[in-house]
Amino acid sequence: MTVRTGIFGATGYTGVELVKILARHPAVEIRFVSSQSSAGQMLTAVAPTAPPLPLVPPQDAPLDEIDVAFLCLPHGAAAETAVACLDAGVKVIDLSADFRLRDAAVYEQWYGARHPAPELLAEAVYGLTEFARDALSGVRLVANPGCYPTSILLAVQPILQAGLAAGTIIADSKSGVSGAGRAPKQSTHFVEVADNFSAYNIGQVHRHWPEITQGFGLWQANPPDLIFSPHLLPVPRGILSTIYAPLQPGWRLADVWALYAQTYADEPFVQVLAPGQLASLAHVTHTNRCAIGLAQAGETLLLTSAIDNLVKGAAGQAVQNMNVMLGLAETMGLE
Amino acid sequence: MTVRTGIFGATGYTGVELVKILARHPAVEIRFVSSQSSAGQMLTAVAPTAPPLPLVPPQDAPLDEIDVAFLCLPHGAAAETAVACLDAGVKVIDLSADFRLRDAAVYEQWYGARHPAPELLAEAVYGLTEFARDALSGVRLVANPGCYPTSILLAVQPILQAGLAAGTIIADSKSGVSGAGRAPKQSTHFVEVADNFSAYNIGQVHRHWPEITQGFGLWQANPPDLIFSPHLLPVPRGILSTIYAPLQPGWRLADVWALYAQTYADEPFVQVLAPGQLASLAHVTHTNRCAIGLAQAGETLLLTSAIDNLVKGAAGQAVQNMNVMLGLAETMGLE
Amino acid sequence: MTVRTGIFGATGYTGVELVKILARHPAVEIRFVSSQSSAGQMLTAVAPTAPPLPLVPPQDAPLDEIDVAFLCLPHGAAAETAVACLDAGVKVIDLSADFRLRDAAVYEQWYGARHPAPELLAEAVYGLTEFARDALSGVRLVANPGCYPTSILLAVQPILQAGLAAGTIIADSKSGVSGAGRAPKQSTHFVEVADNFSAYNIGQVHRHWPEITQGFGLWQANPPDLIFSPHLLPVPRGILSTIYAPLQPGWRLADVWALYAQTYADEPFVQVLAPGQLASLAHVTHTNRCAIGLAQAGETLLLTSAIDNLVKGAAGQAVQNMNVMLGLAETMGLE
Amino acid sequence: MTVRTGIFGATGYTGVELVKILARHPAVEIRFVSSQSSAGQMLTAVAPTAPPLPLVPPQDAPLDEIDVAFLCLPHGAAAETAVACLDAGVKVIDLSADFRLRDAAVYEQWYGARHPAPELLAEAVYGLTEFARDALSGVRLVANPGCYPTSILLAVQPILQAGLAAGTIIADSKSGVSGAGRAPKQSTHFVEVADNFSAYNIGQVHRHWPEITQGFGLWQANPPDLIFSPHLLPVPRGILSTIYAPLQPGWRLADVWALYAQTYADEPFVQVLAPGQLASLAHVTHTNRCAIGLAQAGETLLLTSAIDNLVKGAAGQAVQNMNVMLGLAETMGLE
Repeated sequence: MTVRTGIFGATGYTGVELVKILARHPAVEIRFVSSQSSAGQMLTAVAPTAPPLPLVPPQDAPLDEIDVAFLCLPHGAAAETAVACLDAGVKVIDLSADFRLRDAAVYEQWYGARHPAPELLAEAVYGLTEFARDALSGVRLVANPGCYPTSILLAVQPILQAGLAAGTIIADSKSGVSGAGRAPKQSTHFVEVADNFSAYNIGQVHRHWPEITQGFGLWQANPPDLIFSPHLLPVPRGILSTIYAPLQPGWRLADVWALYAQTYADEPFVQVLAPGQLASLAHVTHTNRCAIGLAQAGETLLLTSAIDNLVKGAAGQAVQNMNVMLGLAETMGLE
Repeated sequence: MTVRTGIFGATGYTGVELVKILARHPAVEIRFVSSQSSAGQMLTAVAPTAPPLPLVPPQDAPLDEIDVAFLCLPHGAAAETAVACLDAGVKVIDLSADFRLRDAAVYEQWYGARHPAPELLAEAVYGLTEFARDALSGVRLVANPGCYPTSILLAVQPILQAGLAAGTIIADSKSGVSGAGRAPKQSTHFVEVADNFSAYNIGQVHRHWPEITQGFGLWQANPPDLIFSPHLLPVPRGILSTIYAPLQPGWRLADVWALYAQTYADEPFVQVLAPGQLASLAHVTHTNRCAIGLAQAGETLLLTSAIDNLVKGAAGQAVQNMNVMLGLAETMGLE
Repeated sequence: MTVRTGIFGATGYTGVELVKILARHPAVEIRFVSSQSSAGQMLTAVAPTAPPLPLVPPQDAPLDEIDVAFLCLPHGAAAETAVACLDAGVKVIDLSADFRLRDAAVYEQWYGARHPAPELLAEAVYGLTEFARDALSGVRLVANPGCYPTSILLAVQPILQAGLAAGTIIADSKSGVSGAGRAPKQSTHFVEVADNFSAYNIGQVHRHWPEITQGFGLWQANPPDLIFSPHLLPVPRGILSTIYAPLQPGWRLADVWALYAQTYADEPFVQVLAPGQLASLAHVTHTNRCAIGLAQAGETLLLTSAIDNLVKGAAGQAVQNMNVMLGLAETMGLE
Repeated sequence: MTVRTGIFGATGYTGVELVKILARHPAVEIRFVSSQSSAGQMLTAVAPTAPPLPLVPPQDAPLDEIDVAFLCLPHGAAAETAVACLDAGVKVIDLSADFRLRDAAVYEQWYGARHPAPELLAEAVYGLTEFARDALSGVRLVANPGCYPTSILLAVQPILQAGLAAGTIIADSKSGVSGAGRAPKQSTHFVEVADNFSAYNIGQVHRHWPEITQGFGLWQANPPDLIFSPHLLPVPRGILSTIYAPLQPGWRLADVWALYAQTYADEPFVQVLAPGQLASLAHVTHTNRCAIGLAQAGETLLLTSAIDNLVKGAAGQAVQNMNVMLGLAETMGLE
């Protein structure tokens, strides 16, 4: 079986990472990579170690030649391209935010625009792979989770599912600069970022807040409140979320650790660290893994959760979702 | 007036920073800089942009030629040197942890050794300058606060003093690598730190935890509990603490901001950022300032507090304390 | 004596550095700082640790209130502003390239535009301070040298002046990212620069090549040819030039070192390192110094020359030039 | 065919990189990884993303279970282990310097010790793969080239082979910190390296100088002299060598570029960049590639040559050599 794929928005950091993964994937053929701004160039002109593929304008992308489209596009544009792909019978894995929020009104509130394709929201599967396998099988539209949400949701799922959470969860997250995108901005200038560290959009105002909150609701009827504080790290890639979760009184770390160990016992991409170990970016960069560490302070569970924002937080999880969607081995191309 | 000074442990990162500040201080003369391991060399051999001063062995340091000694020594060694200095009639500003904890039993519990000079604990003044001016005046022994405690205590003092805190305070702190000292270790190797970010000693196990907790008690009789999570940032210097403090129900950000603005209105080294602004390392590196930003998430106050760990978190605050102790202008040599 | 100054283009990296230096200068008063793009804001909005000065539009800058104008403007714009300043009786220190090349035809060849004020070229003094003191005294227009040229010319002056050079000089230079300016570009995006290192405009094509070559001619009638290869370092600031200069056969390192030691014996800002020592950025960052190391390989002299591109390579040297121009102590405000 | 391998010195940066590559190699089985200092631990305790293999003490390594041993050991120790392996009938790929220099006297001069196994020098093949394929086939001892030599020799081979060189070649090389090894030293402390850049051992005194010079002799009877200047870059990995080679008068860049293009036309791991393009670390990090750019300045050819010091400069080239030695596809496990 060969899966014919096309990548829209291939020149962003997520796009390049995805093309590199797909180029190594034994069951995948890349039929096209597209870019609005760099069409006509080779992908290597943008990313020297990427495969030497020509960039086509998105309007010239041959949808009739592919089975699966990956959308590494800005929100809004992604939904419009998704509609075109689905109309052409092409399955879609969307790495933008367009199909992550199930409620078009919530989308409009947070993204400041009407949803371009609200009729597809009910159909889209939120692809946090470890908890979406049944839903993913055979589906035609996958909403690939955001990077921060992936790091946080994988870390808190066991306590929410078990009903252990007992108060506001605080996620203090730190991300590498590739999460801010490839377009040059003052805030991503080397001189502004190097030797610096800063918080931004903290509390309940970042666009990933409603996505994470919605995720909480998957596992607990009246989920706890969330405070989410992103920070910008002077590194190219990686996210570490330090999470503070008050649990029901009297809990013991050994028991909670056992719950995590059991939940993720057979997961190839989630690593529960030994008791006492804390996650770091070094556990995960350039891998599709999430590493989770557990510690205790009184009644509060301290979770450290690390992913590579470009891999498990974007391109890697997208390929993992494709594998599940199509019935391939889930780890194919990802190890 | 000329203050004759000597610096013990001048080759560490804190020591070098201190020598640079003192060399620019208009009322200070440096009589000696000492080092156990590098005695006989020039300080410039260790730090090329430091003043060209010869390093003497600590046992040869002429205590009779100085008015004030600064101790940039490991804990334990610092207390012993402090005793010798005080016996020689020299005032002491100790940048180690030896005189920060008021209770010798607590010291023994956290530092794993009997306190070398418990008789001095009652006399030592905890030099968080902004809240210790009266006590510092004319004193002969100052315990210079730790770097993390400085960033956290300055940020929470107003709400503790006002009795607004209403639950466990969480301080998620991130520090540059100079905080780990100059001695080479695997964990400070460039290749281990660059592109990485990691948590360590999180919860209630770091040695700064009892110091911060003790500080809370200065302003509130039954202070809130503390969870303190340090992290290692891939930058040379700077600390950013993101602090989560639940306040009494019904509080308004404008009121709390006004409280902070009033508390620090006349402080030359504490900057309360405009509402909506968040602190970053760029606000403070290479200065003696603490920048504090305020935000709200429900009933939780979100504080971002930034300092340069080598300046306001160590050498700068030590000089600020010397200025106050001796009746000099507090900002002398620090602007 | 108080020197009233104004800074045009105060929000660039050079401008901010200059404002910080001038704010500490005991004989200087800053009357205005200007910016085209950020007028109406405070300088602290751009650079949090800069002095809190309001940014005025350049057309509103009160030339009648200042004695000296510093131009941190793009080439072309700088010359036009220089004319306006001089017409208003204001002395000018231009940090752009506009008045560095003495020949308007060479300027046009390298900058692709007619020189905006060729009539001023003869009058402008090329302010490599150590070798321009007589010319600077009382002059009204100073062309502040480029950063790369400063690092290279200070390093080779002694051998050119002594007629020792004997073949093409190769300068392999490496600069921090602030040298590329504050405007965000793809090539200065943190993710593109971090973990990377690259050469650009190597050989005889960089705009600093004619400036350096012209400088050679100051000291030797038929100066050697130059190959100049700039590289981009993943650091915010600093330049290290490694220079390969074949000398007349039979030379001895001790003699050449003595020549350098003598040339720079009384220079406060040029440090000739001990034989065997090599210059590094750590010798100079955040100082107005140039550190020069000498080594030998056969008949080739190996020079390592380090400066902080924003200080000795721009703002610091500009203030040094102002001091000389006005008869102030040369080191005032720079130590 | 399955190649059974063992890796000595698996916990250094080169060792970890090698284990990761071999773990992905379809024809390789790792039978053991050894470490003197970390024996008894898992390799993941040292490098979290490495394969989870137990570290055995080198003296317990089962030589009878392997076909090929890789030595990532200090010089001296490597030669002794090589003897033991060869005696046990195991082929050896030595990543240390022990068998690179063909002359035991030269080894003694540069490494300050008698060669531990001079009788093997004649037999060892210097494994600059692209120019050693015939010699590598079926051999039992490979001396894997040094990192700097690989970057330089691949870049200059075409002009030496063609007899075009016409004077001293200058190689100004810059390396990431992993080249200095994993043992913590003052010079590799994060705070010493970050924001810094420095030269070391420049001229004709670095231990790679005789190795490069010996390499020149492979292709030209009276090879040109070499000046070699290494520098320490604040990045974890990667080498860029900027090389200045005077050529015979009258040469044209187009012709020389054609020579390079032809020399490397069929090479999977050497990329000759288009005329005008310069090599950067971004061309090669995390790959087994060498990227070479060509430019001209008068009669001097300017070469920029980039490799990943841990891959093409060490572990990757070692696997490439193993593939050739054993008759496997040369690119196996390396793409």
